Amino acid sequence: MDNFNFYSPTEFVFGKGRESECGEYVKKYSKGKVLIHYGGGSAVKSGLLDRVKKSLTDSGISFTELGGVQPNPRDTLVYKGIELCRKENVDFILAVGGGSVIDSAKAIAAGVPYEGDFWDFYSGKHVEEALPIGVVLTIAAAGSEGSGDSVITKEDGLIKRGTGSDVLRAKFSVLDPELTQTLPAYQTACGATDIMAHVFERYFTNTKEVEITDRLCEAVLITMVKETPRVIADPNNYEARANIMWAGMVAHNGLVGVGRSQDWNSHGIEHELSALYDCAHGAGLAVIMPSWMEFVYKHDVMRFCQMATRVFGCQMNFEDPESTALEGIRCFRRFLHGIGMPINFEELGAKEEDIPVLVKKLGIGDGKRGGFVSLSSDDVAEIYKIAAKASL
Amino acid sequence: MDNFNFYSPTEFVFGKGRESECGEYVKKYSKGKVLIHYGGGSAVKSGLLDRVKKSLTDSGISFTELGGVQPNPRDTLVYKGIELCRKENVDFILAVGGGSVIDSAKAIAAGVPYEGDFWDFYSGKHVEEALPIGVVLTIAAAGSEGSGDSVITKEDGLIKRGTGSDVLRAKFSVLDPELTQTLPAYQTACGATDIMAHVFERYFTNTKEVEITDRLCEAVLITMVKETPRVIADPNNYEARANIMWAGMVAHNGLVGVGRSQDWNSHGIEHELSALYDCAHGAGLAVIMPSWMEFVYKHDVMRFCQMATRVFGCQMNFEDPESTALEGIRCFRRFLHGIGMPINFEELGAKEEDIPVLVKKLGIGDGKRGGFVSLSSDDVAEIYKIAAKASL
Repeated sequence: MDNFNFYSPTEFVFGKGRESECGEYVKKYSKGKVLIHYGGGSAVKSGLLDRVKKSLTDSGISFTELGGVQPNPRDTLVYKGIELCRKENVDFILAVGGGSVIDSAKAIAAGVPYEGDFWDFYSGKHVEEALPIGVVLTIAAAGSEGSGDSVITKEDGLIKRGTGSDVLRAKFSVLDPELTQTLPAYQTACGATDIMAHVFERYFTNTKEVEITDRLCEAVLITMVKETPRVIADPNNYEARANIMWAGMVAHNGLVGVGRSQDWNSHGIEHELSALYDCAHGAGLAVIMPSWMEFVYKHDVMRFCQMATRVFGCQMNFEDPESTALEGIRCFRRFLHGIGMPINFEELGAKEEDIPVLVKKLGIGDGKRGGFVSLSSDDVAEIYKIAAKASL
Repeated sequence: MDNFNFYSPTEFVFGKGRESECGEYVKKYSKGKVLIHYGGGSAVKSGLLDRVKKSLTDSGISFTELGGVQPNPRDTLVYKGIELCRKENVDFILAVGGGSVIDSAKAIAAGVPYEGDFWDFYSGKHVEEALPIGVVLTIAAAGSEGSGDSVITKEDGLIKRGTGSDVLRAKFSVLDPELTQTLPAYQTACGATDIMAHVFERYFTNTKEVEITDRLCEAVLITMVKETPRVIADPNNYEARANIMWAGMVAHNGLVGVGRSQDWNSHGIEHELSALYDCAHGAGLAVIMPSWMEFVYKHDVMRFCQMATRVFGCQMNFEDPESTALEGIRCFRRFLHGIGMPINFEELGAKEEDIPVLVKKLGIGDGKRGGFVSLSSDDVAEIYKIAAKASL
């Protein structure tokens, strides 16, 4: 096991109706004004935003607000948010929404006390200081409610880049599974795919004998395989929603990746798809992850057999382990298809002729990238090609 | 899933040689003097204490020290520690040792800013304020490095009682698996048993459909079943030690119990054994836990089948589920015996004729206690009787 630090100081406030308590939690951290940051219409229409405002008002907290965060959140709104916070002397940001809203809030939080351009943090500079943030989560997906990560898209050129720092971890995150019950099935499935991807990116490692981390990864994956079809079949299944929402946090606060190498190539390869076509990140992952697996599985057949047997319940073929590895990948793709995800370029709305553009934007150039299997630009092109033509 | 809060703000500093960094971590929290709190000879003899002191000195931190914590730590030393901290203006306590040392440090930390008798906190009063503490862990067992709990024994009458509060959670915990390599096999096995008990007390619940928590519990248990025999066979197996040490933290920081009822009767029933005979807590648990399981399994046969199949790899007997439930319990007892744990009163050094005394001290009286199966004093007497005569 490699040496590591694990630090997840966020207070998670989980369950029905807990958003009515968010004023209490904000009060612990804010002595001035709060920015409520949110996205489009659903938080407004559902009445959630009003309930959050009422909770803040009841706790004697004054606030300003900034809505309009879009999926694949843009730098342009971040600049606006930074300016607003400075003007209004905001000392706490409350993100009400999903991963895009939280990521946008984190970018603003990092930008406010920083003299330079916040984009520096998305170009390699480490965030040392940020305004404290809180979260009221509305979709189980990105895991941003428990992570120190943020991904922002630069409007100019649609460049999607990430940053990460412990100072960007939320002080508290309210997770009410009921808030996710009104989500369309497609968005629910995209979120579930993202959650599973966060685990897989940590599961495929070259570090041996980290049994505890392996088993924790599998715990989350098995839960997702069981619970996701239940919410697709019945959007009001609270118990299944609750399991998925908590699994989404566990998948990405760092716990299931400690002590070993990770490989985030699938996320990187996908980011170019959602940046170019503005498709949902989860849908892009559904197309990319199994294709990445097919390209790399020979690097460690036994690890793919472990996934196949422990996560998807395949029978191990001891005479032909490779067939078990491939069966596990097929199971994953069938599972994704079963919850309504696209599995190839056509279903996603991507174009095979764009592959050279996608590869170029990823920016590996003549180098290689990856913690499990190191990929060249040519390798990535191959993965896009597999993804373009994938079938069940 | 029940509503819950989960908060584990401790920074975990994991791996080989990390204790040499503890000065850096202490420095973040202490502006005055530090109390180094430890137990008997091993931390001194091994040179660990000197390394810790050097790290503090190198970081410019002044300290005082208090050794002598014994297993089942006593209130008498806690009073001494509180007095010392007040006299020397200590503002941070660094616990160097196992669960007993950490629990003693937590009691001192709670007692220093409190005007009354610290024992109030072990008699039902909630701890609202405490000095910050840090940990350098030397044995994987109690999970106190990641929990807000503390158990202290009152010298007068050997009464063992616990308290719990988020303010007692360590600011940081250094977990270096190498420090555990010199432990005798018996202590290692006691620690492993305690870790598994922390999970089982959360695993047996009446709350349905909390798949994610079930699977996380099983992840820790499966890891312990695999790794414990490996360290008993080879005390220097670093990878197995590392897996156990991290599993020990995950088992008890609260994660594997969220969203549902728990049942801590086995811990309570055991505490009377270790208080009366001063035996190791883990050894007492090895005798009590399977006996408790035999007494309660009919309450939820299917849950015991789940344990049997998922944790111990038993084949499910669909025609006779009860036989599978019992086979799981037998597997657990055989496992404990295999790692060198006692399985009945004689092997533990307890006496059957003391059962009425044990039951009386537990103090259930005419009431009932328990979150999975509610037990009367008579029920507890039955469990002690099963434990007294248990065999493989």
